[in-house]
Amino acid sequence: MKNTKVKALLASTDFLKEIQVSGWVRSFRSNRFIALNDGSTIHNIQCVVDFENTPEALLKRITTGASVKINGTLVESQGKGQTVEVQVTKVTILGDADPEEVKRTILQPKRHTLEFLREQAHLRARTNTFGAIMRVRSALSFAIHQYFQQNGFYYVNTPIITGSDAEGAGEMFRVSTLDEKNIPLTEDGQVDYKQDFFGKETNLTVSGQLEAETYAMGMGQVYTFGPTFRAENSNTSRHLAEFWMIEPEVAFCELDGNMDLAEDFIKSVLKYVMETCPDDIEFLENRLIQEDKSKPQAERSTMTLREKLNFVIDNNFKRVSYTEAIEILRNSKPNKKKKFKYLIEEWGADLQSEHERYLVEKHFECPVILFDYPANIKAFYMRMNEDGKTVRAMDVLFPGIGEIAGGSQREERLEVLQERIKEMGIEEEELWWYLDLRKFGTVPHSGFGLGLERLVLFATGMGNIRDAIPFPRTPLNAEF
Amino acid sequence: MKNTKVKALLASTDFLKEIQVSGWVRSFRSNRFIALNDGSTIHNIQCVVDFENTPEALLKRITTGASVKINGTLVESQGKGQTVEVQVTKVTILGDADPEEVKRTILQPKRHTLEFLREQAHLRARTNTFGAIMRVRSALSFAIHQYFQQNGFYYVNTPIITGSDAEGAGEMFRVSTLDEKNIPLTEDGQVDYKQDFFGKETNLTVSGQLEAETYAMGMGQVYTFGPTFRAENSNTSRHLAEFWMIEPEVAFCELDGNMDLAEDFIKSVLKYVMETCPDDIEFLENRLIQEDKSKPQAERSTMTLREKLNFVIDNNFKRVSYTEAIEILRNSKPNKKKKFKYLIEEWGADLQSEHERYLVEKHFECPVILFDYPANIKAFYMRMNEDGKTVRAMDVLFPGIGEIAGGSQREERLEVLQERIKEMGIEEEELWWYLDLRKFGTVPHSGFGLGLERLVLFATGMGNIRDAIPFPRTPLNAEF
Repeated sequence: MKNTKVKALLASTDFLKEIQVSGWVRSFRSNRFIALNDGSTIHNIQCVVDFENTPEALLKRITTGASVKINGTLVESQGKGQTVEVQVTKVTILGDADPEEVKRTILQPKRHTLEFLREQAHLRARTNTFGAIMRVRSALSFAIHQYFQQNGFYYVNTPIITGSDAEGAGEMFRVSTLDEKNIPLTEDGQVDYKQDFFGKETNLTVSGQLEAETYAMGMGQVYTFGPTFRAENSNTSRHLAEFWMIEPEVAFCELDGNMDLAEDFIKSVLKYVMETCPDDIEFLENRLIQEDKSKPQAERSTMTLREKLNFVIDNNFKRVSYTEAIEILRNSKPNKKKKFKYLIEEWGADLQSEHERYLVEKHFECPVILFDYPANIKAFYMRMNEDGKTVRAMDVLFPGIGEIAGGSQREERLEVLQERIKEMGIEEEELWWYLDLRKFGTVPHSGFGLGLERLVLFATGMGNIRDAIPFPRTPLNAEF
Repeated sequence: MKNTKVKALLASTDFLKEIQVSGWVRSFRSNRFIALNDGSTIHNIQCVVDFENTPEALLKRITTGASVKINGTLVESQGKGQTVEVQVTKVTILGDADPEEVKRTILQPKRHTLEFLREQAHLRARTNTFGAIMRVRSALSFAIHQYFQQNGFYYVNTPIITGSDAEGAGEMFRVSTLDEKNIPLTEDGQVDYKQDFFGKETNLTVSGQLEAETYAMGMGQVYTFGPTFRAENSNTSRHLAEFWMIEPEVAFCELDGNMDLAEDFIKSVLKYVMETCPDDIEFLENRLIQEDKSKPQAERSTMTLREKLNFVIDNNFKRVSYTEAIEILRNSKPNKKKKFKYLIEEWGADLQSEHERYLVEKHFECPVILFDYPANIKAFYMRMNEDGKTVRAMDVLFPGIGEIAGGSQREERLEVLQERIKEMGIEEEELWWYLDLRKFGTVPHSGFGLGLERLVLFATGMGNIRDAIPFPRTPLNAEF
């Protein structure tokens, strides 16, 4: 007989039908009520055991964490809290879970800290919270692919191991097969990378953008969705050494079109998640409300999780130039009263999360897209404006989180790009292929990057980015 | 005015409508006919320039590789080979392409070798062949996500950087931030990885399977789809150092269910590609026919590309035990006549591509799934059969390509697994978390791995795996 998923059973009205369901015991109450979960939904199905006709030895093995196969019939539930339940005719133990051993794990049904859950990341998916987060993450990932595929974009896998280090988005991890105890050196004492696997120094990518541009220049509209890496020693709740990034790149598209795309894209994928994972979102919303209760009033969320999601879906993103934003911030209350950690004193300042959140949460009360940033705080490939001091950059700012996505129109003019590369001290030969794109039918084009984990944090209401990815990689941590 | 995609224009019957289209000039003939491509389809749209009323200087800039914006009206075509064309009212040059410079690139409209195309991988997407391959790759990738999402699987991102090296699937790349010119050593002369970024030795993953199992043991059905790495010094047309792998993992599923899944999955995604990319598949089929003409009769394909795809979609995959296959091979003509490079002499032999292809192409004449392999040629985590010498492994074999996917039912019995780990000389502590899965509600479960690039090769009829990924990584090659 085939298993039916808990999700399907809970939605079924096919009463008195014989069914089989397999899963893990979340709890076993009164020697009678098994709360069974199989990962298909956050909800358990209640399986009612006929304990009088079940051997004592078998009943004893129905413990939290054990896996069982249940045969029985689906019936309308008499109890409250569920509409259907399973009248059990047979329980088969698939795998035991020693209650003494379970006590040292996160499977023990009680509140655990998120830190403790991280230490047992291999069991996290069996908890309500991480089941919900990971179902949301999966749905978001699919929504991302679906959005782009339905809108004429092609998925491009840019290289993970790269011999190109010109992007300059951050510190890199070296990839090598050289024997570390016996590194070959050249005559002048440098590491002889000619003897390494790729015959040159290679690193893990920090962004697939430059390579994605090469594909946009032929296929028109492309997107990447893959892992990227930063070897930064930041032990914060916002940074991972390994994270998943989405980078669309569009030919024949200027900054306005790029903003339209970012807004439509983000709204669309969040909407998909609300429609696809309502139970998980509801659970996470309640989790957040509970968590907030232990916080001082001032630190509590002003919106529930669903309110926050609808805030993004229902509002037009306000488009504001950097210059205008600086004026607003300079004259803002928190700036004047010196409440900002970093005070805004003059044009050219790099904005911090506190400033971004002020603009979104207090000033405009809607998501904001800032654009036309000072050239000297942005990357070399962003298109220079006529003023000679700002570039066609954009950042999308969200409540609670600050920057959720960043992008730009790219510099498509060969001479201007060469000039910028020179200023940055990058060798032209390093970027010969990137410059080629400007020599052979260059076109205006734009794109942006969005970190999946930031989006997962936003959609789940979680606070630490280590809880938005199955196995987080951070300084001194690469367990599993 | 907004651009319309070439694909949409070619499908339109909205004649006399004013349109705008932007793209790259593939050719410009008789000072009059622009073949314009924007990557949305393999087909170009013909744009007819009113050359008598167009300045000579502008006409001169309409050259192969240049990018242009065309304004005009869509009309029924008078010429053969297309049903619609654009009557041009205005040409705007977006980016020139110096014809002298174009001559040294693959943009030059003539036959180029695949090797030359690889050297200019940044421009490959602008050729017909690579446009088609990459559209097929993108469609396949989406079909993979869609298949799993529609069948109740959750997408899980397993770690790329891993501190676990027990899988043993192949040579690994080390990931490090230690200064290679000054590697810190411990007192006993070993590399002091405690000082490295993650505080331990880390490598690039060779497979996400073990971590995917941890998620299947909570969420039921999961799949990975991400990059994996092998630091093997194999310079063949079948190996990449970096490739994308798909690994479903299913709880409460034995080997038969795993075979059902693999067969249904592969058929479904190939069907999707045939339906979604008919023009690209047709182009690639003709390309293959042309290529075959230059080969000796014996090496030519016996099936066209679409025949080969339908061969997989329409046939039931024949399920054959390894033991049975060995008997067939031992008694086969090529074995007796010593035509195999590796002769099959006895049970226990590892099968080569030539044997796999013989079974599929000559003996069974349908895709084949071999199962129950000798334990000693397979990985430690595969479930031991009652016979004590074979394991519940399976390989899916395809025409032309041999193994396209490999998997197994996993060993869910703690003691048996511990025994196998010991035999392999792996430290139990290395796999504490993997063993935990067998301590807390272990369940029968199965999964398989499939390399995206092999599937792309099969779906496109290409022969070299370097042409199935945008930027191939192979020994001594990490350009771009």
